[in-house]
Amino acid sequence: MRRVYFTPGPSGLYFTVEHHLKHAVKTGITSISHRSKQFEEIFKEAETNFKELVQLPDNYQMVFTSSATEIWEKMADGLITGKSLHIVNGAFSKKFYSVVNNLNKETDIIESSWGDLPDFKTRANEEYDVVGVTHNETSTGVETPLDQLYSLKKQHPESILAVDAVSSLPVVNLDYSKVDTVYASVQKAFGLPAGLGVWLINDKTEELARNLHDSGKVRQTPHNIVSLIDQARKYQTPSTPNILAIYLFSQVVRDMINRGIQQIRNDIIYKSAIMYNMLEKHNILNPFVKEKTLRSDTIIVVDSGERTNDLLNYLSAHKLEVGNGYGKMMGKQIRIANFPTHSKEQFEMLVDLIEKFE
Amino acid sequence: MRRVYFTPGPSGLYFTVEHHLKHAVKTGITSISHRSKQFEEIFKEAETNFKELVQLPDNYQMVFTSSATEIWEKMADGLITGKSLHIVNGAFSKKFYSVVNNLNKETDIIESSWGDLPDFKTRANEEYDVVGVTHNETSTGVETPLDQLYSLKKQHPESILAVDAVSSLPVVNLDYSKVDTVYASVQKAFGLPAGLGVWLINDKTEELARNLHDSGKVRQTPHNIVSLIDQARKYQTPSTPNILAIYLFSQVVRDMINRGIQQIRNDIIYKSAIMYNMLEKHNILNPFVKEKTLRSDTIIVVDSGERTNDLLNYLSAHKLEVGNGYGKMMGKQIRIANFPTHSKEQFEMLVDLIEKFE
Repeated sequence: MRRVYFTPGPSGLYFTVEHHLKHAVKTGITSISHRSKQFEEIFKEAETNFKELVQLPDNYQMVFTSSATEIWEKMADGLITGKSLHIVNGAFSKKFYSVVNNLNKETDIIESSWGDLPDFKTRANEEYDVVGVTHNETSTGVETPLDQLYSLKKQHPESILAVDAVSSLPVVNLDYSKVDTVYASVQKAFGLPAGLGVWLINDKTEELARNLHDSGKVRQTPHNIVSLIDQARKYQTPSTPNILAIYLFSQVVRDMINRGIQQIRNDIIYKSAIMYNMLEKHNILNPFVKEKTLRSDTIIVVDSGERTNDLLNYLSAHKLEVGNGYGKMMGKQIRIANFPTHSKEQFEMLVDLIEKFE
Repeated sequence: MRRVYFTPGPSGLYFTVEHHLKHAVKTGITSISHRSKQFEEIFKEAETNFKELVQLPDNYQMVFTSSATEIWEKMADGLITGKSLHIVNGAFSKKFYSVVNNLNKETDIIESSWGDLPDFKTRANEEYDVVGVTHNETSTGVETPLDQLYSLKKQHPESILAVDAVSSLPVVNLDYSKVDTVYASVQKAFGLPAGLGVWLINDKTEELARNLHDSGKVRQTPHNIVSLIDQARKYQTPSTPNILAIYLFSQVVRDMINRGIQQIRNDIIYKSAIMYNMLEKHNILNPFVKEKTLRSDTIIVVDSGERTNDLLNYLSAHKLEVGNGYGKMMGKQIRIANFPTHSKEQFEMLVDLIEKFE
């Protein structure tokens, strides 16, 4: 048996990636020009497939970047001239705040302890250029309930609501009409090698970006929201992209459509349920997130305390790799990814093994 | 026979890449955390191998970015507070100039027509933060003779001499003590899939970057020269990188060491010689670069005029792909990459076929 990666990202490859990689090398996709018709076809197919998979409305444009970190920087540069609000409940929501803050922008923050969610209404009715919220905190395993997430839009109707779905897209069933921009990395739930960011931008976000761009108020970098959108409309990118990753993305998304997004989502819920149920009854281990409505389906964080390294080694001896706690929780927690590539059988095996750990 | 890509980038994969890709997938390298010890070993091996391959002096630090375009932006942000000088003789040298210019920096330009080199001495003895020169213009097939390139250092001793070696590294035998910073993309002469930039930064460049960074005069973005260097010293990156590409880079560079860099360079010279010799005598086709000392060994540009599409189709029918002319020369020229992955036998076949084209 090959080692199985339940790590929270990079994670296990989607099970069809190996096949698509072979095809890409065999047919020369790694060697085609990114200015060729063939590349445009790949980009177009990626967009068509993705729009179908998540039912993305037509007022959204998909663009590719090299990472979600790049998206944070380009949002700060291209959308925020006034002030931004950041809902912070872990390391990654904090990072977006830090990126904006380090660029000397004015920022407000609503912060909770790890494992929880702050009170979203604290700054209600204040307007911001951007309100940033993390749907699924990869560091803590807290999932923001969608009704709460959408409530930010009601509280800040003029602001751009930017949703970090790095470790939940395409599993999360988002109502895209209730948010403005959404971004993800492919090395999490898409099951692809790291090195590509996916950014969904609605017309309202584009309009703000274009106005600021045209007014000369924002930096005219090679990659900026406007250049990324303008190129993407031609199925192009401003600079040579990770062509292989875009090809793999298009193919894996097609495979997910064929499997059925509802089936994928049901499987995730099943796997998450058996894991949390087992953890609730475990003698040594506990789910970190106490409030059940906040428990992430895709990133399951476990309090393992001083037994953390024993647990990691025990699972690793069975060729199962899970993640260590993030940042300050390293050595105190484990994090388990529950992504589309992880089969029910693999997950049941993992649950069984953790259940027997003592 | 598989199709052979002599395109100027992305180009044919180095012939060992397929093997390394299989190994990466089989052993889970695409799934490891970029914060793991295992990733640090991969980064360290990449650096060790690369330093050995090109005999990089110890006062240089290697960092990875997502592309050479990102390097242009990070140089503009992190090194240029005053003025920069750009030696421009084609589309890519012009792009670096445009990136800096679009960020509202003060820029001087010394420009020649395509296929030529401008007079480097025009602005001698003026000092700039950065002097940018392209060793090998991928758009025109002009290679800057190294003695001329080094002369820029004598003319601007206080400036950072930044060398674009995008389509010549690691073939070019650079004297790193006579320049300050050098950058490349991996999808050209390294024969790797696109999606990784390699940036070599000497101590003088680092000192300038660090002083500006610490003074707060430059943008504190997630990726900046200082954060890239600080992380690289720990064999780390500021954000999740293209781990697969870094692994493939380390392995291909090792393969090139085993083959011998001198052997690789000799083969390139042999292949370039037979191509230019044939072109000199061709009835229809001509080498674009008239001055022999300026002819690139790695990017050979051919005037093919109205026969361009015929020639592209003729070669393609034989499963050989070459590049079209760049930008304004599309449909008027072809561009042939002569990289380490292209064997003498493949190149001889290409030369024979072009010779017979009428």
